[in-house]
Amino acid sequence: MTDAFMPDSFEWPIRVYWEDTDAGGIVFYANYLKFFERARTEWLRSLGIDQRTLRERTGGMFVVTDSQVRYRRPARLDDKLTVTARVVEAGRASLTIEQSANLQAPSAPNSETVDVAQALLCSGRVRIAWVDASNMAPARIPEALLKQLTG
Amino acid sequence: MTDAFMPDSFEWPIRVYWEDTDAGGIVFYANYLKFFERARTEWLRSLGIDQRTLRERTGGMFVVTDSQVRYRRPARLDDKLTVTARVVEAGRASLTIEQSANLQAPSAPNSETVDVAQALLCSGRVRIAWVDASNMAPARIPEALLKQLTG
Amino acid sequence: MTDAFMPDSFEWPIRVYWEDTDAGGIVFYANYLKFFERARTEWLRSLGIDQRTLRERTGGMFVVTDSQVRYRRPARLDDKLTVTARVVEAGRASLTIEQSANLQAPSAPNSETVDVAQALLCSGRVRIAWVDASNMAPARIPEALLKQLTG
Amino acid sequence: MTDAFMPDSFEWPIRVYWEDTDAGGIVFYANYLKFFERARTEWLRSLGIDQRTLRERTGGMFVVTDSQVRYRRPARLDDKLTVTARVVEAGRASLTIEQSANLQAPSAPNSETVDVAQALLCSGRVRIAWVDASNMAPARIPEALLKQLTG
Repeated sequence: MTDAFMPDSFEWPIRVYWEDTDAGGIVFYANYLKFFERARTEWLRSLGIDQRTLRERTGGMFVVTDSQVRYRRPARLDDKLTVTARVVEAGRASLTIEQSANLQAPSAPNSETVDVAQALLCSGRVRIAWVDASNMAPARIPEALLKQLTG
Repeated sequence: MTDAFMPDSFEWPIRVYWEDTDAGGIVFYANYLKFFERARTEWLRSLGIDQRTLRERTGGMFVVTDSQVRYRRPARLDDKLTVTARVVEAGRASLTIEQSANLQAPSAPNSETVDVAQALLCSGRVRIAWVDASNMAPARIPEALLKQLTG
Repeated sequence: MTDAFMPDSFEWPIRVYWEDTDAGGIVFYANYLKFFERARTEWLRSLGIDQRTLRERTGGMFVVTDSQVRYRRPARLDDKLTVTARVVEAGRASLTIEQSANLQAPSAPNSETVDVAQALLCSGRVRIAWVDASNMAPARIPEALLKQLTG
Repeated sequence: MTDAFMPDSFEWPIRVYWEDTDAGGIVFYANYLKFFERARTEWLRSLGIDQRTLRERTGGMFVVTDSQVRYRRPARLDDKLTVTARVVEAGRASLTIEQSANLQAPSAPNSETVDVAQALLCSGRVRIAWVDASNMAPARIPEALLKQLTG
């Protein structure tokens, strides 16, 4: 699969708050999985998909089955990030989403502009699979939904 | 102190994500303190105050010394909230901020509009005090900052 | 109500990890509500009450309706805390629990012992009410449960 | 590298609380990274290493540079887990730790015993690298520390 066939990435802005940082003075690495989740949720919403409604109607939901993340540069309090999401594999029961967090603008009003080469903070892949919410058993993604997602 | 003398509330929109909920199916109550913090941070930013820059320049920071929260109605996944912040007391070393979280729109696209009387989810007060960041000792809020805040 | 009639406090040890801290170098204040919750859960467990089983059997659960916390001194990475829980009011539909977090031992192996007068980090009250889990409607605490709790 | 040459795994018990779960009724997957971190911290502590003291003495700290996690079965409120940590690669500037979360006992007092084959909830690898805490620049792990860790 080459990039040429990939849909454009969905982008979502995220601001770093106190709650996201740790005593190292930087964003706690586990929190990038939260940022990635927010971007996936907003990507779904941009396609007209509301996960709560989806669950009420179909009895199913997506769960994360695999995550792979490389943390390259730290983000800090008040930084503004752009988080991306892009489907790179779509099967009948699961999707693999490529994601990244990028520094859009550092917090300090007077600081220099961000060097593009240094903007990539963190990148990874998250695999989500469709399950029956009542018993967590793997199931096929409803056809209409799959079409919306990979349209 | 009456409302008549109070500045208008600052308002900040917040969306409920998976990370915010718990197995009760609702927003985990401790997370409203995070929502309140985000609204205070954005209120400060709206006044031109960036907390990281502030700390680098003054060596001081605000810490929360008291919180009082009443949780009235639950919020759920995908709900859109409006969180407010308003200074109700300003001393030389601390501020008291009145805050609330309100249901702006429920997630379900077809659901009825929100009954205004039922929109208030959670309300409270948070006292923040200025400290020297190096040793956490209470200190006076820098004069210029206090003016900006209570302007 | 005087202390003389109060049952002894339940105590639970909690260690401060990276996840609990923020860029201020201290425990993020909202996390004390998590520490308080853990102590309440373990207090219930010490009485033979498992909340998941309870919900499956009765269809009900406790939710927090009010929290009041005073943050006095900061805790830091690796600190060992003792968190307490004690019923101070018991009604038919709700309980009020008095809670505190105390520094049991600082992290540094060679540091002086903790001054008892300075051990209290944070104290507060949390009110929990019984609700029907299916619709979140307030309800009476099941009689057998109430006896176990206030016995 | 075969298991025969691997040191035994360090094990740490972790209880699932409300704060760890999400509206799917299960542990929010990002929280396994927190559980893994707690186990690594306690493994370090078991070797006499306190991270805060270490940072004060050396000016350095470990940061996570890569995480890879497979989420196999869900954990639920009140479950008791055993989380493991084991060094599988040790370089001069980084370590790779293999980790897993296992169901030790389900919450319900009367439920059947755990099927060993189904006990594995989640497994992964976390790479941690040593950095100068003042500027986050990669650095060699202090020799004495490396000996303690891989001894």
